[in-house]
Amino acid sequence: MSFNKKVSIAVIRRLPRYYRYLSDLLKMDITRISSKELSQRMGVTASQIRQDLNCFGGFGQQGYGYNVELLYREIGNILGVNNNYKTIIIGAGNMGQALANYENFEKRGFKLIGIFDINPQLIGKKIRNVEIMHMDKLEEFVKSNSVDIAIITVPYQNTREVAEKVASLGIKGLWNFSPMDLKLPYDDIVIENVHLSDSLMVLGYRLNEMRKAQEALKADSSQKQKEDKK
Amino acid sequence: MSFNKKVSIAVIRRLPRYYRYLSDLLKMDITRISSKELSQRMGVTASQIRQDLNCFGGFGQQGYGYNVELLYREIGNILGVNNNYKTIIIGAGNMGQALANYENFEKRGFKLIGIFDINPQLIGKKIRNVEIMHMDKLEEFVKSNSVDIAIITVPYQNTREVAEKVASLGIKGLWNFSPMDLKLPYDDIVIENVHLSDSLMVLGYRLNEMRKAQEALKADSSQKQKEDKK
Repeated sequence: MSFNKKVSIAVIRRLPRYYRYLSDLLKMDITRISSKELSQRMGVTASQIRQDLNCFGGFGQQGYGYNVELLYREIGNILGVNNNYKTIIIGAGNMGQALANYENFEKRGFKLIGIFDINPQLIGKKIRNVEIMHMDKLEEFVKSNSVDIAIITVPYQNTREVAEKVASLGIKGLWNFSPMDLKLPYDDIVIENVHLSDSLMVLGYRLNEMRKAQEALKADSSQKQKEDKK
Repeated sequence: MSFNKKVSIAVIRRLPRYYRYLSDLLKMDITRISSKELSQRMGVTASQIRQDLNCFGGFGQQGYGYNVELLYREIGNILGVNNNYKTIIIGAGNMGQALANYENFEKRGFKLIGIFDINPQLIGKKIRNVEIMHMDKLEEFVKSNSVDIAIITVPYQNTREVAEKVASLGIKGLWNFSPMDLKLPYDDIVIENVHLSDSLMVLGYRLNEMRKAQEALKADSSQKQKEDKK
């Protein structure tokens, strides 16, 4: 299925979420769904869903809704879950090891083929049968393995240096976990910066708002009780 | 400063990003900035920035721009960076340990006060002076420490059980790292689900699009060369 190339990044960023929801539906043997039902499950408007999926040529049929499996497969294709991106992790600390253990990445189209660190105590250790190698071996490894993506989980102060190194070796996709918006001055490199604390801050905000709403409710009802007693 | 309570969650989700950018500006001793400059740095439109910040009463002055420190402080207040949410981590595997080591959380208003696991080899170990305790101690600990937020980094199959436990103990904020959209049937509990692979999938998509664009460019130019030779 061909689709409009000018899809906004905002729509693209929502696709993995559709993909997850559709995967859950398939697990529940739900084979078709209306945009209304899907919107209720996902907590977005039905018109948003129709708009988003129209960017890729629709997939829905009036009166029938969406064929879950077809939609799941098509979104997977758009996202490239069958692309088998060759992926390495640089930095085998806790975060690097946590990610290396994350089997879901393979299901999403990312094949972990190497892990690198400078800590001698980690070198030679295997995670899911992938060996941790010394950074000295990085260049040779990248040259003989056409690596697509480097996941960078090194300390903050080493991030830029490692990113420059990786870019100089021809790796075009960088997934950065240090708390900085990493940018490199090359047009042909794609970087996604992960900012874990953003989501935590939103949690704090929502928690605070909920508590304020509850207190307002309490104050209201105790005020009402007082008035009723009068 | 008072602000409109009905701020959409979409705006809230952008605030941590403003907060990070403003923090970077402060580090560079930049004290004021126009919405245009800020928009160029952040890669969003100036009108988006004005719209977002207007939800909270503005902060900007026509012809002057934004006072960086004031805006930074106000967004920090809105997000609650001074709220010192008492936070625990449940699951001291690699992800739990990585998060426990993440000093930035304290700067964002989250104080780590306890870590829990069931693995006897981990119990008693300390991370940044916070002891890993056995899950048996959770109830007592939560009762005597009015915990605000639980970070859940246990295996997928244990997530729901742990979340129910945590909720039953009165913890109102849950930050969930297992790859599921955790939902609980309580109105007074706030959950943020982290889906790391969403961002990786977007990276894969962007990488693929960039490559396709490059190939199209190459095909174009070789076509042109052929035509020029004729």
